[in-house]
Amino acid sequence: MLSILVNMKVLVTGGAGCIGSDLAEALLLRNFEVTVLDNLSSGKIQHVEKLLGHSRFHFVQGDLLDLDLVSRTMAGVEMVYHLAANPDVKFTPGDATDKDLQQNILATYHVLEAMRLHAVKRLAFASTSAVYGISEVQPIPENAICRPISLYGATKLGCEALVSAFSSLFEIQSWIFRFANIVGAKVRKRGRTVISDFIQRLRDDPSRLTILGNGRQAKSYLLAEECIAGMFYAIEHAGERLNIVNLGCADSLRVTRIADMVAAAMGLSGVDYTYTGGEGGWPGDVPRFMLDVSAMSLLGWQARCNSERAVEIAIQAILRTAEASQIEVGGAACKP
Amino acid sequence: MLSILVNMKVLVTGGAGCIGSDLAEALLLRNFEVTVLDNLSSGKIQHVEKLLGHSRFHFVQGDLLDLDLVSRTMAGVEMVYHLAANPDVKFTPGDATDKDLQQNILATYHVLEAMRLHAVKRLAFASTSAVYGISEVQPIPENAICRPISLYGATKLGCEALVSAFSSLFEIQSWIFRFANIVGAKVRKRGRTVISDFIQRLRDDPSRLTILGNGRQAKSYLLAEECIAGMFYAIEHAGERLNIVNLGCADSLRVTRIADMVAAAMGLSGVDYTYTGGEGGWPGDVPRFMLDVSAMSLLGWQARCNSERAVEIAIQAILRTAEASQIEVGGAACKP
Repeated sequence: MLSILVNMKVLVTGGAGCIGSDLAEALLLRNFEVTVLDNLSSGKIQHVEKLLGHSRFHFVQGDLLDLDLVSRTMAGVEMVYHLAANPDVKFTPGDATDKDLQQNILATYHVLEAMRLHAVKRLAFASTSAVYGISEVQPIPENAICRPISLYGATKLGCEALVSAFSSLFEIQSWIFRFANIVGAKVRKRGRTVISDFIQRLRDDPSRLTILGNGRQAKSYLLAEECIAGMFYAIEHAGERLNIVNLGCADSLRVTRIADMVAAAMGLSGVDYTYTGGEGGWPGDVPRFMLDVSAMSLLGWQARCNSERAVEIAIQAILRTAEASQIEVGGAACKP
Repeated sequence: MLSILVNMKVLVTGGAGCIGSDLAEALLLRNFEVTVLDNLSSGKIQHVEKLLGHSRFHFVQGDLLDLDLVSRTMAGVEMVYHLAANPDVKFTPGDATDKDLQQNILATYHVLEAMRLHAVKRLAFASTSAVYGISEVQPIPENAICRPISLYGATKLGCEALVSAFSSLFEIQSWIFRFANIVGAKVRKRGRTVISDFIQRLRDDPSRLTILGNGRQAKSYLLAEECIAGMFYAIEHAGERLNIVNLGCADSLRVTRIADMVAAAMGLSGVDYTYTGGEGGWPGDVPRFMLDVSAMSLLGWQARCNSERAVEIAIQAILRTAEASQIEVGGAACKP
């Protein structure tokens, strides 16, 4: 479909984020006309700076909580990639409990409502493996029971439910992607993800590293560029009204192993690890999961890099970026 | 648990509704102190009138969208039965698409947030079989994939997801009940449900009846009193942190059969049926489903009345109520 409908007008919400901006660029390369809508709360204008002069690229700074704006931006759009979300997966006691409700559920409702108002009939939605919670079945297939343990995962599941209903009621073809941890070269806010945490802390003190949890947390990782390739592939090859697919690698990688890899990449040895203890790294953390990616395999696509290779590439890319630009090291792992 | 913790203070949201008011009465009989919170948008003060003088009964008229009110009402509460919801399952083109979002998701978030603020640790939540959408597996077990096709079902699934996350993050023991179509004697707004529709239309014209869809829609029905008994039983016997159970009968009943039963109960014969056509009765209607109730059976509980018997009892009760009080006939089937 994508290969046929060139010049189609697409909207990328969260298109100044680390996945969204790569996606916007990939869509331009495929001859789409691309509008990015981003409030720059976690996205960065630098991520799309090189696209700003492109004749088929449009940037709208605005908030998805503003339905009028979303609706105006939706005029003429033929497909939406809805990636905008609250990127802070961690809930810290004292945080507001309605941040995910606003940024995920209400924002997604506005996207869907604007699509309905403008009869936009195609949607790709960035969901998360966090919808599953702690699954008894590993690796986790798409039909596993969803019992999210984080506000992030819960509200993403709420979004999926809204997408499901809108798809059925208003004839919108939808692809819901349950992402693994997406990693890449783009620099993000410090403290948000494991790779950035480790690099930052080892820069502060190369002799020791505090690791959240017991270090045995093990998760699936996927490179941002592979994530985008996987989305394109699924949109071209999965033709149901509502398509829900896991997007990740078949394996997982332990947190302590990531610490070893970061230390080695920084040329450090003998780093003293301290563990904060507990199964998960923070309240709502799913300590161990592997995604069953056989649905994507059956369609004919699988990731080229496994979790370790993806993390390795991301570490190298972040270190290069940080050295080159002297900007704050922030890690590249996007929300799981 | 319920049998031990007498005098426990419980809050029933939507407690002036057709299930909630029966539940409130049943809780009073079991020696609980009961506060009903209801905005009377679909609930009726008449439903709780006979409880108003009871020393252990308190009625608060108010809206769950008012978080301050919900929080004030939550003070001292030890368990919540959250039944309040938008009862209009049908979406009619032209309707606002955010009604369920407000009345289900935002309202439920407020209940959960107020519980968190007041450290209330037990929650029973009235969900719906509509969360499943059109399931390939019939009868539908609790671990079936959920792909709701209505805004009602979607937002109830969103509520379930929030309950799941709050249960895990804030140590709330929760029971999520996925109700079949609940039927009973209480009179509800006309036009909302199949029994009321049929009685009303046959009163208007005893010679003919318009049936939505093709009449082959077949659903599970459960008496309100059995629904309440089932909830009590599950709360006493299902001891997980998060418990999700179908609550219904193992069978289903066709819409045309309900028409026959209503006509017979009204002493009519030779009624001419006209079908509006289509699989479902309205956009978002799940035309056929049966619930797998083996989880409740394994706990040791099952409904005494099958769907046909439940509907028969409800028809008789509604006709009696309508004749006795001369009030508008509204049917007794609650939201599926």
